[in-house]
Amino acid sequence: MGKGLTSRNEDYSQWYNELVVKADLAENSAVRGCMVIKPYGYAIWEKMQAVLDKMFKDTGHSNAYFPLFIPKSFFSKEASHVDGFAKECAVVTHYRLRNREDGKGIEVDPNAKLEEELIVRPTSETIIWNTYKNWIQSYRDLPILVNQWANVVRWEMRTRLFLRTAEFLWQEGHTAHATREEALEETKQMIDVYKEFAENYIAVPVIQGTKSDSERFAGALETFTIEALMQDGKALQSGTSHFLGQNFAKAFDVKFSNKEGKLDYVWASSWGVSTRLMGALIMAHSDDQGLVLPPKLAPIQVVIVPIYKGEDQLATVSEKAEQLKKELEAKGISVKYDNRDTQKPGFKFAEWELKGVPVRVTMGMRDLENGTIEIARRDTFEKKTIELTENTAEYIETLLDTIQNNIFKKALDFRTEKTTKVDSYEEFKTVLEEKGGFILAHWDGTEETEEKIKAETKATIRCIPLDAPEENGVCMVTGKPSSKRVLFAKAY
Amino acid sequence: MGKGLTSRNEDYSQWYNELVVKADLAENSAVRGCMVIKPYGYAIWEKMQAVLDKMFKDTGHSNAYFPLFIPKSFFSKEASHVDGFAKECAVVTHYRLRNREDGKGIEVDPNAKLEEELIVRPTSETIIWNTYKNWIQSYRDLPILVNQWANVVRWEMRTRLFLRTAEFLWQEGHTAHATREEALEETKQMIDVYKEFAENYIAVPVIQGTKSDSERFAGALETFTIEALMQDGKALQSGTSHFLGQNFAKAFDVKFSNKEGKLDYVWASSWGVSTRLMGALIMAHSDDQGLVLPPKLAPIQVVIVPIYKGEDQLATVSEKAEQLKKELEAKGISVKYDNRDTQKPGFKFAEWELKGVPVRVTMGMRDLENGTIEIARRDTFEKKTIELTENTAEYIETLLDTIQNNIFKKALDFRTEKTTKVDSYEEFKTVLEEKGGFILAHWDGTEETEEKIKAETKATIRCIPLDAPEENGVCMVTGKPSSKRVLFAKAY
Repeated sequence: MGKGLTSRNEDYSQWYNELVVKADLAENSAVRGCMVIKPYGYAIWEKMQAVLDKMFKDTGHSNAYFPLFIPKSFFSKEASHVDGFAKECAVVTHYRLRNREDGKGIEVDPNAKLEEELIVRPTSETIIWNTYKNWIQSYRDLPILVNQWANVVRWEMRTRLFLRTAEFLWQEGHTAHATREEALEETKQMIDVYKEFAENYIAVPVIQGTKSDSERFAGALETFTIEALMQDGKALQSGTSHFLGQNFAKAFDVKFSNKEGKLDYVWASSWGVSTRLMGALIMAHSDDQGLVLPPKLAPIQVVIVPIYKGEDQLATVSEKAEQLKKELEAKGISVKYDNRDTQKPGFKFAEWELKGVPVRVTMGMRDLENGTIEIARRDTFEKKTIELTENTAEYIETLLDTIQNNIFKKALDFRTEKTTKVDSYEEFKTVLEEKGGFILAHWDGTEETEEKIKAETKATIRCIPLDAPEENGVCMVTGKPSSKRVLFAKAY
Repeated sequence: MGKGLTSRNEDYSQWYNELVVKADLAENSAVRGCMVIKPYGYAIWEKMQAVLDKMFKDTGHSNAYFPLFIPKSFFSKEASHVDGFAKECAVVTHYRLRNREDGKGIEVDPNAKLEEELIVRPTSETIIWNTYKNWIQSYRDLPILVNQWANVVRWEMRTRLFLRTAEFLWQEGHTAHATREEALEETKQMIDVYKEFAENYIAVPVIQGTKSDSERFAGALETFTIEALMQDGKALQSGTSHFLGQNFAKAFDVKFSNKEGKLDYVWASSWGVSTRLMGALIMAHSDDQGLVLPPKLAPIQVVIVPIYKGEDQLATVSEKAEQLKKELEAKGISVKYDNRDTQKPGFKFAEWELKGVPVRVTMGMRDLENGTIEIARRDTFEKKTIELTENTAEYIETLLDTIQNNIFKKALDFRTEKTTKVDSYEEFKTVLEEKGGFILAHWDGTEETEEKIKAETKATIRCIPLDAPEENGVCMVTGKPSSKRVLFAKAY
């Protein structure tokens, strides 16, 4: 185990692809672009879901469920939305198959053609706003604070496990408000929730900002984003929150009577994160030995590996191991006691390293005679022999926190080191080529310049950072005036 | 609120349809046959999911996720499966839309036709067994105990909210085993899990049994079912667990080397429950005033309604109410304090009755002066004035258990009363017509007789009960010998 993994230096992209498969997270399916999320990978996603779901509920949201299918005509109702989403998508045209006359399998029944084609949802603004129309009459019906956990489909031509797949899992929040201010406040609140989740759970620091016109969500007035930096110096957009203004309310004619009894269109936000976060988690921390999982999202936080010869020794070790397991579990820590007799310890070490278990406890006969155990950290590979006492569980609990903080700090230091301010387009190209990472530079605010930079360097504006200080400067390309630096990077 | 509801006697079917919508559980969407599950309904489904998910994990299962789409050809691989599932389904034929030349909206791009059509999964045996092929080489890879929470689509012509919808939510377990015995054991274990869930959580008694040949899952050797009785005397199949033998392993060529090193096909089970359980929950207990929710699955278990005049009184009542709320929440009880000033108490009473909240606490100024509160049970409408003391939270906690047990007992008594043994076909028809419910009768075991009964009476064999005693008898229709009674009913 672990041995066959291509190193990051050798081929970062290959390293990622291999790691996802070898660590049993996901694999490609028989359906082009659709993945199978394996139990170990899904267990991480479930932990992410549980934390996010609680954060959504703590901020007043409820879950609901809307149809998988959207009538084709709905996409034409919001002018900019149709170009963004109704193109590369899965189209249902028929509702029945029949046996072939020649007896060779089945075929689409031409008599079962739908009057109007249905699109497998790429995102649900249209069907949801069509529904909200019936839910909203007066300001008393507002706000609506709803989230949906669902699968969506976007027919991507080039796919990569977790990062870009035809079908993916996500949550999409869709809220309706009486005022512009409240909708905008909600939009910002949710990008804050995403930042908190990314940093405190995935242990990945993110830059919050707004998207430029060209990168904005199709149908939004403003898109807020969190941008993370991966170890290869490329950015990963990790979550977005959109201020939709009254665009969807107008498209679906959703009006409400306000406190003054006057009719107005409803204000909206939508926001989402997806299984793409799995990609962020994998790429931000892992190394050439395999996954490095943040303890808060690790399905197995501690693995105990016994070292023994024969049944008797195993029984002795197992007793101590099971006791420690119980003590750890009492603290809410998830523990695997790996007492398989089909594998040697070395194999197990490599396997759990590959799978990113934060803490490994080794228990051998000699250790137990000395009253000690060996503890190995996945993040630093540091090993330490400690006494096995009633405080051991607490020691490990603290160690898990230490690891969580350490990998965040490591990712933050990396990002700091890989963030460069540049003042000329030449320097920009050199840094991009030789160092990579985030680049802060002045831009004149036009789509033309953005396009030119993208065409010439493949770098895009990741966001206009919320915390960018006002600073007089000139666009590195055109020399036109600019009041703040924006964040550039090559991106996934 | 509550007033507009058609009574059960008047029109049971109409009562159900109205109740689902008026209680804010679900509604029809703009897409034929697909429903919107509203926040209140979804909150119940989430509670069901949480309990079931824990039961699955406690019995050793993990969750995973498989693709939404299945290549058409996969359905032809298991001979009986194709007839059962590959007929009425949503077929994806294209992967792109384009703008129409006349500028009037969008149309399917004929250049983006898929080489092989994709079917939106009606159930996932085929895609999963195609995947398991790569996961299984040796007996060491077994068992595989996987569950998936997912949406599925079956193109039903006549749909009803929760009971029969084109898209529905469910879980589907798919397990792989080295031996026939183990797979069968798993199949039985899961129908036991379903029975426990139905009876202890939904508070609906169920009959466990096996399906007759004609009602068996397409591709199974044996289908186990749990059958519940609704208040209109019709049965609702509430969960099934299938022993698949080696059928799917053979169809997808999934072999493993056993301990003796010999190759054999893998043994399988699959099992599922769906949002149909919401239909069971609604229909089994509710009355002409609205929903009656079992406390264990109620999103709001206790509602507190203040009676007051003016801000000062409200402040006084609120203090006591918030304190009780806190005490109840400390016991894990979910509480809504309904202090809306836009509605009168009578309106609130009717609304929470309609929504099935098990316990209502009324707090008025006069009560508080006397140191009492009024407690109303949703299941019996019984009202009681009790002293408000430090034991009140415990009193309510016990009351919730009492209600849970009472509605189960009520449903059980109803079923007992509505279960009839008959010995002649004439009696069968009379009972079916005049009394309805479950009928236990002898049957000769042939498909012909089953068909005849169905054609003439619309009753079907719900199951061959697992606990049916051996009993010599003769088929009520043909007079041929029969060794046990089977369970008949009209069914949803």
